[in-house]
Amino acid sequence: MESVKAQSYDVHIDELAQAALNQHIAKNDYSKTFVLVDTNTKKYCLPAFEKKFEEPIDSIFEIEPGEENKNIQTCLQVWEQLSNFDGDRKSLLINLGGGVLTDLGGFVASTFKRGIDFINIPTTLLSMVDASIGGKTGVDLGSLKNQIGVINQPQMVLIFPEFLKTLDPRQIKSGYAEMLKHGLIKDKEYWDDLRRENIFEVASSIQKSIAIKNDVVMQDPTEKGLRKILNFGHTLGHAIESYCLENYDKKTLLHGEAIAIGMIMEGFLSHKLTGLSKLCLNEIKETFLQHFEKVDFDTNDMDAILKLLKYDKKNSHGNINFVLLQSIGVALTDIKVPENLFEEAFSYYKE
Amino acid sequence: MESVKAQSYDVHIDELAQAALNQHIAKNDYSKTFVLVDTNTKKYCLPAFEKKFEEPIDSIFEIEPGEENKNIQTCLQVWEQLSNFDGDRKSLLINLGGGVLTDLGGFVASTFKRGIDFINIPTTLLSMVDASIGGKTGVDLGSLKNQIGVINQPQMVLIFPEFLKTLDPRQIKSGYAEMLKHGLIKDKEYWDDLRRENIFEVASSIQKSIAIKNDVVMQDPTEKGLRKILNFGHTLGHAIESYCLENYDKKTLLHGEAIAIGMIMEGFLSHKLTGLSKLCLNEIKETFLQHFEKVDFDTNDMDAILKLLKYDKKNSHGNINFVLLQSIGVALTDIKVPENLFEEAFSYYKE
Repeated sequence: MESVKAQSYDVHIDELAQAALNQHIAKNDYSKTFVLVDTNTKKYCLPAFEKKFEEPIDSIFEIEPGEENKNIQTCLQVWEQLSNFDGDRKSLLINLGGGVLTDLGGFVASTFKRGIDFINIPTTLLSMVDASIGGKTGVDLGSLKNQIGVINQPQMVLIFPEFLKTLDPRQIKSGYAEMLKHGLIKDKEYWDDLRRENIFEVASSIQKSIAIKNDVVMQDPTEKGLRKILNFGHTLGHAIESYCLENYDKKTLLHGEAIAIGMIMEGFLSHKLTGLSKLCLNEIKETFLQHFEKVDFDTNDMDAILKLLKYDKKNSHGNINFVLLQSIGVALTDIKVPENLFEEAFSYYKE
Repeated sequence: MESVKAQSYDVHIDELAQAALNQHIAKNDYSKTFVLVDTNTKKYCLPAFEKKFEEPIDSIFEIEPGEENKNIQTCLQVWEQLSNFDGDRKSLLINLGGGVLTDLGGFVASTFKRGIDFINIPTTLLSMVDASIGGKTGVDLGSLKNQIGVINQPQMVLIFPEFLKTLDPRQIKSGYAEMLKHGLIKDKEYWDDLRRENIFEVASSIQKSIAIKNDVVMQDPTEKGLRKILNFGHTLGHAIESYCLENYDKKTLLHGEAIAIGMIMEGFLSHKLTGLSKLCLNEIKETFLQHFEKVDFDTNDMDAILKLLKYDKKNSHGNINFVLLQSIGVALTDIKVPENLFEEAFSYYKE
């Protein structure tokens, strides 16, 4: 499958990825090559990766998986390992894992000795279609997602669709939600195609999703304008995700599960404020509920989620700005939402 | 005194600094203005700063002073305070303190929500002439200095020489060592002038030191070549500083005190390897020993210091590269030093 040219690097898919990796290593005179894995990718992805990789790996660093470990303490572990294993400015870190791992590993590499090279190999559908593009790195601060980080580009991103076979259906669906978002904000035809597709055969659409996201990011790398459309479903989605993460009596949601709810609610806000038709709104709700079980939120939940909203890093000067849809495929940014509509959005999701 | 144009920002001195600060704040629509101080600068510098500053300060964050607090735990404190006081992407952080505080505050700002604006107001002579230029931010990892950080430029740097009156003589001398270094690596005339000056009247030379450092950094912002000359005295100096910091039976050295020792020893290596005359070497040793009391190192100390050398972040592929002098005012980079000379360098310092 064709490679995608991102800002300062390429995203290579499948057989081209393997060749690109080995060429890059041969061309660069790295002092050490380190691989960062988590308990899952060590078991399910590392053996296959080691077969593809021609050069010796100096050390493999292992971290615990999951959003609850995407924090500065885990960074400290990896910084210390890099230091203990004689990592220097000419070392390379290869991040083999999902979005949590590549976000964290990218941040660790970007800040170790003021920045070393890193390569991302996303192993989940979500990270292949989303975290692989855009250069965002970072970790959470308490329950607040991605509060600490930098924008920095990897040397390259490599996508091996075979890793999708190691995922459970819940994780596939989580990535599928982001792919549907790409259709909603930029490409109605893609939305229609994806909805009809068997979600376990979406590997062939990965490139299309990457291309949509990349096209947006290239036009606005620093998120001054257009890039904000990628946040559709994420303003409420992030708050819901944070809330469920910090409440032990709530089931922790995968990122795609949270933004699927966010997209239904922000679809409702779009219907109220920016002209999204009732028909399209219902199509969005039906599509997501077909794949994602409804989550119960009572009034206390809702109040706590709305409180978290104001901490979202995309808010500025205390205003809460949303990305809303004018129609399927057309997104508008910086829309202010009257507070009374939030409750209605929750009701619409529940009904 | 005239401002110095650095990479993407200006260094303003004295009366121009105050005007520049207030203009910048008036021009930029910051959502919040935070000031970071330590226990010392809160007491000795904040009151004077508040008189100069026309806009309201939203919150003042206080950290403990000293290299031993220049770590990720202190960063976490400040990140959490920024978050708790509703800091967002449009917030400004003003760092009021010495090099430890501006390095740490710069890193915190560069990584909070993937980067907010910051202004540095160095309050020690050392940070005025050194940390104010070059965009290096970061914190230590255990006893290893500046292992975690990024290169990122402040909006501006403001120098108020009146803050020098708040310093004890030890701190003035520490900055004076860096100023002497600027002469040694780039400007013999400046070296001669500085040596003759009363060290408590060096305020008038701050601009010259900043101009020398800035000239070097502008030619090589990413430290590929020329910028390395700024590390003269720092390869051994950093190791000595780290060693004294982590050993409770050693007196903790200020940065300038450690690199003064480093410059004597690396002066010796320069005499052995790169043609520095015996006369110049002795002049260097005498100049520093006139202001800095000799520190005792036994064989165990020396062995431990040499072990730390290999962790220095400027080492690559396990080689230890030094910046050495060809003559006073002319530095050479990437000089490999045979290991047996290290012991001789310690002996020369002791004798």
